[in-house]
Amino acid sequence: MKNIPGSMGTCASIALRLGQAICSSSSILFMSLGVGFYSYTAFCFLVTIMGLVIPWSFTLALLDGYSILAKFPIHQSGMLQVIILGDLVLSILTLAAASSTASIVDLLLKADVSFCPPRICSRYQISAAMAFLSWFLSLTSSLTNLWLLPSLDAD
Amino acid sequence: MKNIPGSMGTCASIALRLGQAICSSSSILFMSLGVGFYSYTAFCFLVTIMGLVIPWSFTLALLDGYSILAKFPIHQSGMLQVIILGDLVLSILTLAAASSTASIVDLLLKADVSFCPPRICSRYQISAAMAFLSWFLSLTSSLTNLWLLPSLDAD
Repeated sequence: MKNIPGSMGTCASIALRLGQAICSSSSILFMSLGVGFYSYTAFCFLVTIMGLVIPWSFTLALLDGYSILAKFPIHQSGMLQVIILGDLVLSILTLAAASSTASIVDLLLKADVSFCPPRICSRYQISAAMAFLSWFLSLTSSLTNLWLLPSLDAD
Repeated sequence: MKNIPGSMGTCASIALRLGQAICSSSSILFMSLGVGFYSYTAFCFLVTIMGLVIPWSFTLALLDGYSILAKFPIHQSGMLQVIILGDLVLSILTLAAASSTASIVDLLLKADVSFCPPRICSRYQISAAMAFLSWFLSLTSSLTNLWLLPSLDAD
């Protein structure tokens, strides 16, 4: 049970973490390059949450890399609980931010071209899509680690 | 491990399910009583999802009630997995709908009074708040049942 692909200390976990960091970074970049994102609360919320996800994912990717290279398995129940909780909270916040952004972009597209020129609006859309991708990867990490937890408690 | 408050077949579970059904119903009512909710995609999404949560929660409340009255514990692993999966999917959709609605209401409030008169807008706000409450109760149900699962597999 201790080698579930995607749980901490596996190569799949590094891939998931790097995926999260890349998706979050591109989400922030596409949003920040658009002019005037700070006039919408939902867009500011997205940038804030993505700004939290990037260091979290990057740190855990480094931890995974160290764990694989030094052959030091991270299977302490307490540490894993903190990681699962962090992933769960961040994935909930990411989903909320991504769906808020998507709904605002949808409204702006319907409302008027002056609110959202096509060039800017497509950036917002890509940003929301990247945030959804980041959410999916976060949830996958969280669930695979949660799956590992009972087998650790049983030891 | 088999009497975790909130897991299937306990009184707390009935309370959670009824809470979900009541919150979802009031969310739909507050949204539908407002005129013209169908012109916003996010509001239609909220009504659709709440329309799915109500029968799901109500059916599971009845199942819980039967389980308690007939002293027939629902602890089959397969059935519990379906219930956990259903709860998880519905809670994700509820969170997405609630945050979309909240962000749209926030934007409408900022934009112009003509888009959203205060009397109508406060209804939308209450509807979003009720949806968030319903999401929280759904997630609690899902997590408590997930907590119960490993102890069933161990039997």
